[in-house]
Amino acid sequence: MKKKLMAVVGHGENADESHLKIAYELGKEIAKQGYILLCGGRAEGTMDAAIKGCTEAKGISVGILPESDLSKTSKHLNIPILTGMGFARNQIIALSCDGMIVVGGGVGTLTEVAYAYAYGKPIVFMKDSGGLVEQFSNKYMDKKKRVKIQEATTSEEAINLIKNSK
Amino acid sequence: MKKKLMAVVGHGENADESHLKIAYELGKEIAKQGYILLCGGRAEGTMDAAIKGCTEAKGISVGILPESDLSKTSKHLNIPILTGMGFARNQIIALSCDGMIVVGGGVGTLTEVAYAYAYGKPIVFMKDSGGLVEQFSNKYMDKKKRVKIQEATTSEEAINLIKNSK
Amino acid sequence: MKKKLMAVVGHGENADESHLKIAYELGKEIAKQGYILLCGGRAEGTMDAAIKGCTEAKGISVGILPESDLSKTSKHLNIPILTGMGFARNQIIALSCDGMIVVGGGVGTLTEVAYAYAYGKPIVFMKDSGGLVEQFSNKYMDKKKRVKIQEATTSEEAINLIKNSK
Amino acid sequence: MKKKLMAVVGHGENADESHLKIAYELGKEIAKQGYILLCGGRAEGTMDAAIKGCTEAKGISVGILPESDLSKTSKHLNIPILTGMGFARNQIIALSCDGMIVVGGGVGTLTEVAYAYAYGKPIVFMKDSGGLVEQFSNKYMDKKKRVKIQEATTSEEAINLIKNSK
Repeated sequence: MKKKLMAVVGHGENADESHLKIAYELGKEIAKQGYILLCGGRAEGTMDAAIKGCTEAKGISVGILPESDLSKTSKHLNIPILTGMGFARNQIIALSCDGMIVVGGGVGTLTEVAYAYAYGKPIVFMKDSGGLVEQFSNKYMDKKKRVKIQEATTSEEAINLIKNSK
Repeated sequence: MKKKLMAVVGHGENADESHLKIAYELGKEIAKQGYILLCGGRAEGTMDAAIKGCTEAKGISVGILPESDLSKTSKHLNIPILTGMGFARNQIIALSCDGMIVVGGGVGTLTEVAYAYAYGKPIVFMKDSGGLVEQFSNKYMDKKKRVKIQEATTSEEAINLIKNSK
Repeated sequence: MKKKLMAVVGHGENADESHLKIAYELGKEIAKQGYILLCGGRAEGTMDAAIKGCTEAKGISVGILPESDLSKTSKHLNIPILTGMGFARNQIIALSCDGMIVVGGGVGTLTEVAYAYAYGKPIVFMKDSGGLVEQFSNKYMDKKKRVKIQEATTSEEAINLIKNSK
Repeated sequence: MKKKLMAVVGHGENADESHLKIAYELGKEIAKQGYILLCGGRAEGTMDAAIKGCTEAKGISVGILPESDLSKTSKHLNIPILTGMGFARNQIIALSCDGMIVVGGGVGTLTEVAYAYAYGKPIVFMKDSGGLVEQFSNKYMDKKKRVKIQEATTSEEAINLIKNSK
């Protein structure tokens, strides 16, 4: 009965139009393919855009929030999980997802990807979306070679890569 | 777009038939009334029973698990959130719910109720279900009188009490 | 090389003079007997008083704080551990201590004691200090009978009870 | 009364002799200069070596452990803080330290450094120690330019760089 959870992580407040468009399309595709969208849940950047796309395609979105109240939560989000634990919540996203798709992103995203890598989760980087994870695209993050970070150019390709990873 | 999350907490491994029946009925009613079921997610006791009821009534269930893998997760659960944080996860259930319904329960349940009380969440105790929270039924937990712990005899009454609390 | 950590928990902002005096004496005695004082670390109530006593007796104090900055930290504290995790930090105090001494306390203290009980830690309640834990004094918290909550009238007695528990 | 906490992070189980030597010297120097050593607390790699150095120089060491028991704790450690929260504990190290010194390190270390950067903590990388953080040495991690990751060749230099950062 478990549903598959697909995480989208990436640029927050300093996402540009191209990041938002990619995240929005990912949210839509995740919903269409029957996955649950899992993300940071905030009303900003790629989180908000992915949630909007998911909601418009009638999907279900779960946000794991750093806050203990809804003040920064995306208004499109269905299921806000308030952790009250700050960015320690990044571990929860990484542990709970069946795969992680990365759209740019700074140090926060880097921790989410590093956790996901440590937990052996399939990770896909959206090509040319920049940020701190780009350097690891098509590579392993370290010598332990847990999972190779794959690269996709479209939402469908990203989801397919994760599907085929397991 | 936010859905309402109704938490069910209570006896785990040492739940008896009456606890399981109450939790199962609660899960069903929560689903019927369009709420999301929020609970500890494990394959035991009132958690498992509530999730089963919710799933059978075609509702959506979210479990906040102490573990970092699915080994102890209820097989009926839709959306497992793996925290890897042990019982620190009890704070997350209390912060995220719109109301908490209590079916018996020991020290773990007591922490969940104490957190929910501290965060001002509506709490309803299922009459005669026993455990450590029973002493607070129809009372405030402390002098700060944040929320009075209410008492219900049926699933419908429990949910109505929470609905009317806000 | 591990030092023994003695936790003091109890009334926060609404501690009265008698609670503060007991906590202060506990802090002093903990230091004198070569233990590390472990507590919530805040500049209020029994936490602040115990830390003050410990520091005056040249002991070492460790505070596990809910906050992500030092704004609410006791000025007497030696080692502030900033969790940024709110009251989920209560689990950390319970897991890390070798014993827990309780001076009154409300719902927050109740969660700390419930966690400590669940983890099988020796717990001593200071006689007549009131609050939510008093009802469990000289009793087990539940049928699992993990640890009996003991009762002491002086700092020395409290520490001795914990010493002799293991 | 607050003591300064100096974090040492880096290679765990796959540290080589050179990493262990650097970490050991750092532990010694941290103790000599009156700082508290803060680290992950485990009986492996740079954590264990730094703690050993600190203890031999009669310093105080605090370890923030992922586990809920002492099974993986360095036997040299003075003050084990058991979080039971897995690698979510990396946030606690980053929030609590007054500065962070990096000796090589993989994805786990990368999250610790990313958190410390996000929280604006002074960070020093030990020159030529390799690992995933090396690429950021003498650089900012992102465009927000919160803190420049500095580089040191000796323990004394590392500590001085952090001292002069604030």
